[in-house]
Amino acid sequence: MSDPVDALVGKRKREMDGPDSAHSVGWTRPRHAELADEANPLLLECGQSIWPVTVEYELYGELSPARDNVIMIFHALSGDAHVAGWDATWQEHGRPWRAWPDGKSPNWWDSMVGPGKAFDTSRYCVLCANVLGSCYGTTGPSSTNPATGRPYGVEFPPVTVGDWVKLHARLLDHLGIDQLLLAVGGSLGGQQVIELGLAFPDRAKGLAVLAASPQLSNQGVALNYAARQAIVNDPCFASGQYYGCCRPEAGLGIARMIGHITYLSEMGMEARFDSGRKKPDELRCDLFNPHERALGDGSGFIAHNEFEVESYLTRQALGFNERFDANSYLYITKAMDYYDAAQWGDGDLVKAMARARGDWLVASFTSDWLYTPAGCRRLADALCVNLKPVTYVNIESGYGHDAFLLEVDVLERLLTGFLKGLQR
Amino acid sequence: MSDPVDALVGKRKREMDGPDSAHSVGWTRPRHAELADEANPLLLECGQSIWPVTVEYELYGELSPARDNVIMIFHALSGDAHVAGWDATWQEHGRPWRAWPDGKSPNWWDSMVGPGKAFDTSRYCVLCANVLGSCYGTTGPSSTNPATGRPYGVEFPPVTVGDWVKLHARLLDHLGIDQLLLAVGGSLGGQQVIELGLAFPDRAKGLAVLAASPQLSNQGVALNYAARQAIVNDPCFASGQYYGCCRPEAGLGIARMIGHITYLSEMGMEARFDSGRKKPDELRCDLFNPHERALGDGSGFIAHNEFEVESYLTRQALGFNERFDANSYLYITKAMDYYDAAQWGDGDLVKAMARARGDWLVASFTSDWLYTPAGCRRLADALCVNLKPVTYVNIESGYGHDAFLLEVDVLERLLTGFLKGLQR
Repeated sequence: MSDPVDALVGKRKREMDGPDSAHSVGWTRPRHAELADEANPLLLECGQSIWPVTVEYELYGELSPARDNVIMIFHALSGDAHVAGWDATWQEHGRPWRAWPDGKSPNWWDSMVGPGKAFDTSRYCVLCANVLGSCYGTTGPSSTNPATGRPYGVEFPPVTVGDWVKLHARLLDHLGIDQLLLAVGGSLGGQQVIELGLAFPDRAKGLAVLAASPQLSNQGVALNYAARQAIVNDPCFASGQYYGCCRPEAGLGIARMIGHITYLSEMGMEARFDSGRKKPDELRCDLFNPHERALGDGSGFIAHNEFEVESYLTRQALGFNERFDANSYLYITKAMDYYDAAQWGDGDLVKAMARARGDWLVASFTSDWLYTPAGCRRLADALCVNLKPVTYVNIESGYGHDAFLLEVDVLERLLTGFLKGLQR
Repeated sequence: MSDPVDALVGKRKREMDGPDSAHSVGWTRPRHAELADEANPLLLECGQSIWPVTVEYELYGELSPARDNVIMIFHALSGDAHVAGWDATWQEHGRPWRAWPDGKSPNWWDSMVGPGKAFDTSRYCVLCANVLGSCYGTTGPSSTNPATGRPYGVEFPPVTVGDWVKLHARLLDHLGIDQLLLAVGGSLGGQQVIELGLAFPDRAKGLAVLAASPQLSNQGVALNYAARQAIVNDPCFASGQYYGCCRPEAGLGIARMIGHITYLSEMGMEARFDSGRKKPDELRCDLFNPHERALGDGSGFIAHNEFEVESYLTRQALGFNERFDANSYLYITKAMDYYDAAQWGDGDLVKAMARARGDWLVASFTSDWLYTPAGCRRLADALCVNLKPVTYVNIESGYGHDAFLLEVDVLERLLTGFLKGLQR
C-alpha cells in the first residue's frame, strides 16, 4: 500500500540502524538502582510509603566532567528504559514482558538517539528510566510485595506523575547529576517533564514537552476508564492476582484497542486502512461464528476480523498481551488521569507555571486528539503569561498522537536547534 | 451545575410535554405488521432469506386522503419505533427491553414530533418503524428461530441498511403509501434515508439526512469493533445463547461506554463534567478494591468511579443493560460498519448519487466526530455535482454527534422551512 503513513513507517524502517551501525548506540543492557529501602522508603502522594524500590534505567554516551551534558528522556504509557540501540537482553529469560519481544527492532526512540542523531550520544549523555508501577524492570504490581511474598497485584499503591518524578530525582542524586541539560518526553512522558519543571525547577536547564498538556481531557479520562473496565471485568483478572494463572488477555486486548485508536487520527486511519466495504454477496452469514478465534494462536481472545482496521487492532491487542502487564496498565492510566499541573497553583495553571525556570519547548501535532493542540497550547500560554522563555510549535501532521514518535525529521530539526540554544 | 450542556438538557426537560399536553401525541401503542412469511420471505443482501418477519411501528396524525402527508422517521442504533408521545405499554411485561424503562420520559424524539412541533402531527402523518435485528419489537436475534424453536442469537443472519430499507418499503406498501412527503433520520437513521433515496428514488419527495455520511470512517469502524469485542469476549455471552441465563452485562456496558464517548464532543465533555483532579491526600489507596461493584445493585459489572465522567459512563452502561440486547448491538453496529452509499456507483459516490431524486437536506454538526462535517459534506457535494437540489448546513454545536437529538430549535427552523418548500 502506498499511503503516507506506511510510506513514513517504511522510511523509518529503511533508516533503521542495525546494532553495528555507526549511528547506533549498539547493543544495550539496562542498569538497576535500589533507590528506596526500609530506612529510606519512598513516600508516595497517596500517603503510603513503599520499599524496596528498584529502578531500571539506561545510559548512553559519556558524562562530561562537569556533568552538564545529560539529556533525560521520559517515556510514555507503554514505554520503557530501552530508548536507543538494540536490547541485548531480549532473548534472556527472567523478565516477564518485553517491549519488543521479537528482537527484530531497535529500541523505541532509536530514530532520535545515537551518534549523529538529534540526541547525539557522541556529545550528550542520554538517560532514560522506567516508571514506578510499570512492568519493565522498575518496581510495579508484578513485583513481589515484601509484606505477603506474592506479587503486589492491586495491593500496589496508586502512583502519580509526581511520584515518578520524585523517584527519578533520586536517580539523578544517585548518579550525581545536579542539573539536566534537557528533560524531554512525549505524551505521559511530556507530563513528567512538566512535573519535573514544577517540582524541581532547578533540575533542568531545558524542558521539551511533546504532545502533552497540563491535564488529560475528560474525553481521555473516559476512554481510559472504558479500557480499565475491560480489564477489571475480565474474569481472568481475578482481582489482580492472575500471575501464574491465565491472564486477562481479552480485557487487556480491548484496552489496547481503545488506546491505539486514540494514538492515530481519523485522517491517518483513512489513509492507512482500506475503507472498502463488503459487497452484498461477500457478506458472511456466520458473522459471529463462536468457534473462530483470533489468528488461531490459541489465545483466549475471540476476534472476528472483516476489515483491515479490525485485523490491525487485533494484532495490536495480541502483541500487547505479549509485552505488557494488565495491572501496570491500570496503574499507569490512572496516573495519566490524575495528572493536573495546575495543582501547583491551587487549580490555577498560570499561577502554577510561575514556579517554572529553564527554557521551555512545547510541541503539539495538528491531528492529535488525545493531547490536542489547544490543550498543549494552554501550557505554552501559561508560561508566556509568566514571561518565561518558551517556544511553542503546532506541527502539521496526519499521524495523530503517534506523531511524536513518527515525525522524526521535524523533531530532529526542532530539538537540535533547541539544544544549541541551551548551550549558548 | 450551570454548564451549557446541562442548561440545554434542562431546557429540553422544561419543555417536555406531558401525555395530556396539547403538544403531545399522548399515550401511544406500537402497531405490528407481518411482512414476510414462507410464501414471501425477505431476501437479505447476504443471500439468506428470512421469515417470519414482524415489524413494529408507530403512526401519529391523520393520513390525508391523497396519502401525501407522510413523514417517515428512521431511528438510530439504539432507537425504536416509539418516537413521540408517551409509551402506554411501558409498564406491561412481555417485552424484554424498553427504551425508556422508567416511564418518566416521553419517547425519543418527542421534542420534534407532535401538534405544533417541527413534524406537526396536526398536519402530517408521522411514521417510524423499528429495524430488523433490533430488540424493540421487530424480528431480531432475541426472536424465536422457527428452525430451532429457540432464540436466533448469532444464528440470526447479518442485516444491512439496505435490508432495513427494503423491509420498510414493504411496510409502506402494506400501509398503501406510495411516496413519503419526507424521509428523515439522524446518524444510522440518516444512512437509511440515503439508502432509501438510492434504492427507491421515487419513494420520498424530500430526504433529510442529519449527522450521517455515506460511509462510517475507519475510526468509527475501529471503535465499533472494540465495542463488539467487549461483548463477544464476555464469558456470559456464551456464543450468543445467553437468553434466560446471565447476560454479557460487562461487555455490553463497556460497548455502551465506548459508543457514548463518540456521541459527545471533547468540548461538551469539558463543559459537562467536573475536570477537577484528586488532590494527593484524596488519592485512594484501595484503587482497584476487588470487592467494589457498581452502585451496589448486584449487577455483574465492576466499576471504580472516581471522576464525574466515570460515574456518568457507569450509569450509561448499567442503564443500557436494562434496555438493550447485546446481540442486537452486534448486528446493528455491523450494519453501520458495512454501509457504503458509493456501492450504488461501483465505489464512486458521485456516480451513485446520480440515481437520486427528490429534494435533499444534509445537516452536520461542527463538533460531531463520529459522522464528521467533512464526511456529511461529501454527500452534499456528490449531490451538487449531479445538479440535484440539495441544501447543506453545518450547524455550530458543542454537543457532538448527540446534537442531532439536542439542537431542537435550529432543527425545528430548518425542517419547518424544508417541509414548506416540499409542498410548494
